[in-house]
Amino acid sequence: MSRGREYDGAITIFSPEGRIYQVEYALELVKKGSPIVGVRSTEGVVLAAIEPKQSLLADQNFSKKISKIDDHVGVAIAGLSPDARVLVRQARYLSQSNKMTYDEPIDIEEMAIAIGNLLQRYTQNAGARPFGVSLIIGGVDTQRVSLISTDPSGSYRGYKATAIGRNNENAKQVLSEEYAENISLDGAKGLAVQALKAAAEDMFKAEYLNIAVISIKDKMFRTLSEEEIKKYL
Amino acid sequence: MSRGREYDGAITIFSPEGRIYQVEYALELVKKGSPIVGVRSTEGVVLAAIEPKQSLLADQNFSKKISKIDDHVGVAIAGLSPDARVLVRQARYLSQSNKMTYDEPIDIEEMAIAIGNLLQRYTQNAGARPFGVSLIIGGVDTQRVSLISTDPSGSYRGYKATAIGRNNENAKQVLSEEYAENISLDGAKGLAVQALKAAAEDMFKAEYLNIAVISIKDKMFRTLSEEEIKKYL
Amino acid sequence: MSRGREYDGAITIFSPEGRIYQVEYALELVKKGSPIVGVRSTEGVVLAAIEPKQSLLADQNFSKKISKIDDHVGVAIAGLSPDARVLVRQARYLSQSNKMTYDEPIDIEEMAIAIGNLLQRYTQNAGARPFGVSLIIGGVDTQRVSLISTDPSGSYRGYKATAIGRNNENAKQVLSEEYAENISLDGAKGLAVQALKAAAEDMFKAEYLNIAVISIKDKMFRTLSEEEIKKYL
Amino acid sequence: MSRGREYDGAITIFSPEGRIYQVEYALELVKKGSPIVGVRSTEGVVLAAIEPKQSLLADQNFSKKISKIDDHVGVAIAGLSPDARVLVRQARYLSQSNKMTYDEPIDIEEMAIAIGNLLQRYTQNAGARPFGVSLIIGGVDTQRVSLISTDPSGSYRGYKATAIGRNNENAKQVLSEEYAENISLDGAKGLAVQALKAAAEDMFKAEYLNIAVISIKDKMFRTLSEEEIKKYL
Amino acid sequence: MSRGREYDGAITIFSPEGRIYQVEYALELVKKGSPIVGVRSTEGVVLAAIEPKQSLLADQNFSKKISKIDDHVGVAIAGLSPDARVLVRQARYLSQSNKMTYDEPIDIEEMAIAIGNLLQRYTQNAGARPFGVSLIIGGVDTQRVSLISTDPSGSYRGYKATAIGRNNENAKQVLSEEYAENISLDGAKGLAVQALKAAAEDMFKAEYLNIAVISIKDKMFRTLSEEEIKKYL
Amino acid sequence: MSRGREYDGAITIFSPEGRIYQVEYALELVKKGSPIVGVRSTEGVVLAAIEPKQSLLADQNFSKKISKIDDHVGVAIAGLSPDARVLVRQARYLSQSNKMTYDEPIDIEEMAIAIGNLLQRYTQNAGARPFGVSLIIGGVDTQRVSLISTDPSGSYRGYKATAIGRNNENAKQVLSEEYAENISLDGAKGLAVQALKAAAEDMFKAEYLNIAVISIKDKMFRTLSEEEIKKYL
Amino acid sequence: MSRGREYDGAITIFSPEGRIYQVEYALELVKKGSPIVGVRSTEGVVLAAIEPKQSLLADQNFSKKISKIDDHVGVAIAGLSPDARVLVRQARYLSQSNKMTYDEPIDIEEMAIAIGNLLQRYTQNAGARPFGVSLIIGGVDTQRVSLISTDPSGSYRGYKATAIGRNNENAKQVLSEEYAENISLDGAKGLAVQALKAAAEDMFKAEYLNIAVISIKDKMFRTLSEEEIKKYL
Repeated sequence: MSRGREYDGAITIFSPEGRIYQVEYALELVKKGSPIVGVRSTEGVVLAAIEPKQSLLADQNFSKKISKIDDHVGVAIAGLSPDARVLVRQARYLSQSNKMTYDEPIDIEEMAIAIGNLLQRYTQNAGARPFGVSLIIGGVDTQRVSLISTDPSGSYRGYKATAIGRNNENAKQVLSEEYAENISLDGAKGLAVQALKAAAEDMFKAEYLNIAVISIKDKMFRTLSEEEIKKYL
Repeated sequence: MSRGREYDGAITIFSPEGRIYQVEYALELVKKGSPIVGVRSTEGVVLAAIEPKQSLLADQNFSKKISKIDDHVGVAIAGLSPDARVLVRQARYLSQSNKMTYDEPIDIEEMAIAIGNLLQRYTQNAGARPFGVSLIIGGVDTQRVSLISTDPSGSYRGYKATAIGRNNENAKQVLSEEYAENISLDGAKGLAVQALKAAAEDMFKAEYLNIAVISIKDKMFRTLSEEEIKKYL
Repeated sequence: MSRGREYDGAITIFSPEGRIYQVEYALELVKKGSPIVGVRSTEGVVLAAIEPKQSLLADQNFSKKISKIDDHVGVAIAGLSPDARVLVRQARYLSQSNKMTYDEPIDIEEMAIAIGNLLQRYTQNAGARPFGVSLIIGGVDTQRVSLISTDPSGSYRGYKATAIGRNNENAKQVLSEEYAENISLDGAKGLAVQALKAAAEDMFKAEYLNIAVISIKDKMFRTLSEEEIKKYL
Repeated sequence: MSRGREYDGAITIFSPEGRIYQVEYALELVKKGSPIVGVRSTEGVVLAAIEPKQSLLADQNFSKKISKIDDHVGVAIAGLSPDARVLVRQARYLSQSNKMTYDEPIDIEEMAIAIGNLLQRYTQNAGARPFGVSLIIGGVDTQRVSLISTDPSGSYRGYKATAIGRNNENAKQVLSEEYAENISLDGAKGLAVQALKAAAEDMFKAEYLNIAVISIKDKMFRTLSEEEIKKYL
Repeated sequence: MSRGREYDGAITIFSPEGRIYQVEYALELVKKGSPIVGVRSTEGVVLAAIEPKQSLLADQNFSKKISKIDDHVGVAIAGLSPDARVLVRQARYLSQSNKMTYDEPIDIEEMAIAIGNLLQRYTQNAGARPFGVSLIIGGVDTQRVSLISTDPSGSYRGYKATAIGRNNENAKQVLSEEYAENISLDGAKGLAVQALKAAAEDMFKAEYLNIAVISIKDKMFRTLSEEEIKKYL
Repeated sequence: MSRGREYDGAITIFSPEGRIYQVEYALELVKKGSPIVGVRSTEGVVLAAIEPKQSLLADQNFSKKISKIDDHVGVAIAGLSPDARVLVRQARYLSQSNKMTYDEPIDIEEMAIAIGNLLQRYTQNAGARPFGVSLIIGGVDTQRVSLISTDPSGSYRGYKATAIGRNNENAKQVLSEEYAENISLDGAKGLAVQALKAAAEDMFKAEYLNIAVISIKDKMFRTLSEEEIKKYL
Repeated sequence: MSRGREYDGAITIFSPEGRIYQVEYALELVKKGSPIVGVRSTEGVVLAAIEPKQSLLADQNFSKKISKIDDHVGVAIAGLSPDARVLVRQARYLSQSNKMTYDEPIDIEEMAIAIGNLLQRYTQNAGARPFGVSLIIGGVDTQRVSLISTDPSGSYRGYKATAIGRNNENAKQVLSEEYAENISLDGAKGLAVQALKAAAEDMFKAEYLNIAVISIKDKMFRTLSEEEIKKYL
């Protein structure tokens, strides 16, 4: 660890072991973020986030751990929310311009690649730090139901179900044990909630949860109300 | 703390723990600024600031802790006032250009996002320091009464009531204890004054107070006279 | 003090306490400059500076501690005169272009804001040091008599009377004790001279003094002759 | 080793022994990547990669160790996949624009040179790190069957058969011992699998394998199904 | 002195005492330059420089301590002559373009300000060092006889008589003791020579002297011949 | 040696002894490269290189130690081949554009100067390292048979015969002892092979050799086959 | 000496004593270069250089210590020849463009100034090192016979005779003792050879000498043959 010190300076360069410390530190930040979970079903995809209220006087409507990109796709974020906004803005722009050009909703993986390419540039060029955020992108395009995560290195990877952020290993264990290939969309909501619960420690309350769903039926991004969420606790 | 030293150098990079020290130091500066308070009511929103006169010869008219952005929105600032002016200028420009383009007052959250995005860029790119200022934005747009704070990281967050700056924890305690969902606009003024008093230590005088109100009735930014303020002491 | 060392390097960044050392060092320079004083009266405004002759062979006409910006506004400077010239040039340009555009003399506070914004940019962006100069701007615009000071941070502040530079605390004490709201323009000249005397130590001579006055009657920047000045000693 | 420390700083400069440490560190990273193999036959070319599933919940379809560039050419990658995507994108662009201009598939070596030139620029100019990826490019152009590897220095080299990444020396030993000039395309597939097996340690499973083939018959990039792969285990 | 060390690095920044070391070091250089002297008379102005021949084989015609800018104005330089040439070139350009635009010789102080502004930029912006040269500008414009010196900080100052460079304090003492307000142009020549003699130590020879004169009669820059100079020794 | 350490940093600056370490380190790299030889005859010029196969599976056709620039000129390279490609590309461009403009083959020395000027820029300007490669350029232009070498400093020099790279002193000794002014082109081929043999240690095999010849008869760059080479062993 | 260390970093800044170390180090390099000599006569000018053959196989025609700029002017160089080429190229360009514009040969001093100005820029701006070369420029223009030297600081100076490079003090002593104002052009050739001999130590041979002459008769740059040179040994 201590030898890393000399290689994590002002720009994103390689350490002797071929590591890029600034990217690893960004990942460290992501690991400390509030946990997020994504679960894919053949019927659609679920994104879930937990964010304990920091103050009784906070306005709950302002939680932004889950954002709609377009009707058919949304993201959950772990890490720096100001950095996430840059990526969300870019994703929305990509989606709009795809619609303009091809008159159809953007392919989810193509969107993930475009975001990954933006992330990569911030790991290679001097003059800026990497983005301090990982995304779980969930959506239903003309081809398939997709659940893809990106990280600060610019890598992206597809999953049936995954979790990022604080205690994500607890959440992932629940996902591994409970996930079934034929899980229903309703089952996916419940599983996402259970996974978050495993990561949330003692901060688990319906009002802290954010859940968004995109069903293959209508391909419409929809967030659950607190009432709806309570059904899955 | 001491290991942080190596990571807070010339540009905004990550420390091994995934922290961005320059942003944290900017927050430190903000914490030492004169306290500001915002309180939201269903009838409108109140912004309040206290700024002890530094000299008997100072011209009271020049206090700038609260600025009007547009008829329906204002900001209170904590931190470096020259930095704040850059943000205020940008907010005014956004508001004007929104009016030109859509012929309606800018949505308060949209304005907060735009300012947050500007703040974010100064945390990611080399060649400049982050802004050393936090804002409380209060306003009444076509949708709702909004009270939003931004900080040097580019984060923004909605509140029913909040306080920033020196002794903000004292002010927040008053707000938490006294805030009621159904508070009247008049009650909000009184509460803002009480909260500032808790933060002000022994420097609390009507002539040091700045209070601005935007009511849902007229959606007009209005500052209170010293006489009006005295009613709430 | 000694920990500051690590944070005052090549560019204007925050120290852990949220300070910007380069700005503080610039202020240190200003504090060592020859004293300047400004006094506001309802009848006009007075700017005064003292600059001991450095050599018997110096050409007195070249003293530049007070500069005319436009008919209705002037500045006194404390600090680096080459830096001040940049600001004076900018102020003159602003004034001219305001006249061209609106056909009226520039508002004094607007000019102060524009100069403050220029100063601020040099505290935030890498690649240059802050300006090493503070100004006292005095003028009479269509609205009011104004006396405003700027400092290297880009802050500006209005005053009834103020002093900057070496021993400014002595000058300010005189101003505080002697200033009256209803002071006449003539009284303001005398007070400015007394305040400078308090700061000047043993270097106080009529020939070292520079005094400029702008009266509300003619709104014309005018410098006093040595004879006129002697009346106020 | 330890003296190298002083020469692997922010940009790609020479050490006293004439080494460029940043390039060597990038190679170090490549050596730790999942192994890839290429085998050339007179009947076509085979690219093979192994990538153990990191999680049961990972979506196998997202493995990207082998990418199609154009009908007649593909690449296998070892190292940072976000960096590889930049090169793949560039290769696709080159191929398309060659088709547009000359109406024929791009020459494989020409493509390798163009990618090598891009890689070289990132080893000579400051402001960016080298690419952390090596490629095996396989294809069939109008002239010949080609198998070429590139590395982070921008070097490229032709092979009959080669391996890159973790335990590549084991894979190369298999290739050296088993390769025959008259190997059939089918034999090449089997040899590629054997070589990967030698490098894979205990992580060797059909489902972890990616194999792509370009035959001289149709000059069409084609990936093998898991069923097809099993024939060669 | 020793604490200054940390503040005189790559760019022109403030030290904790508000000093700009690079400018001070440039002044140090100037102080070691060959002495130059300027003397103003109501009848005109005299510039004088001494430059001991460095070698018997040097071509005396190439001494460049005094340069003509235009008919009515010249400069003497102390410090780096290559740096001085940049300023001389700029001054000539200013003079020519003033003539073109206004059809009259450039005002001497305006020229000094323009050069001072150029000097100032090199003290504030990173990426270059300050100019290592001071000038004595002497001339006769439509208003008056002017004698102005500039230094590396961008400051300029008017004098009746002044000296810069090695042992300038000796030269200045002569000037102070001997200067009279009503000195004739001829007297000024003699005084300039006496002042240089005081600074020259044992290197004082007619052939080492350069003297230029601009009389109010013809406003023509003229250099004295060695014969003429000898009259004033 | 050890004092050099402080002067070989990020850019190409002078050490106190007036050395440019980055250039010297690049030369160090070149000295470790595979040996190359050039021999000039009145009948033409010979370029020769040895490159031991690194692997049995390497594709011999990809050896690039000798490149054709144009019909009448070629280069042998020692050092980083990716860097060499940049120079080769530039040389080809120069040659083509010379043909276009003047309708005749480029003068060999002119080409060497142009390449040298490119190399020089990388030794003077910050932001890039010098090129890590030396060339032997051989050709027959309208004037003469030329053999010129360039090095990373941008220097170029003409030779009757020369060698660069590993053990070049051994190769040069052979050249010195055996070269005759009236050597035939055939003799030059044999001498080049003998010189390479002296440098090659125990790695000397016909299949490792690359030899190119340009005869004054046809002025056509031609590489020898392995069979032809064997005649000279 | 040792304190200099801290001031000779990446760019050309002043040390506390007002020195620019990078320029001094460049001069150090020049002092180690092969000696060059220039001698002026009323009948023309002589440039001479000595360059011991580094190898028996070197092509004597490639010696470039003396270059023709135009018919009436040439330069001898001491220091880095690649750097010198940049200056020579610039000088040729200046000469050509002067001819185009004014239809007469360029004034020698004007050319020296232009080169000096180019040299100066590399001593003031960051991002490049100074040029590591000094020139002796000799020529005959419409006004006079000129002999001017430039150095890395951008200074230039005229001489009757001068020497630069290794052992230049020996060469200068010969020049000082033997030079006569009325020296013939033939005498100047002999003197140049004698001066070089004094500097050359034991490496003095006719074949190592380069001598160029420009006579006032034809104003044509001409190099002497080895036979001609032998007459002056």
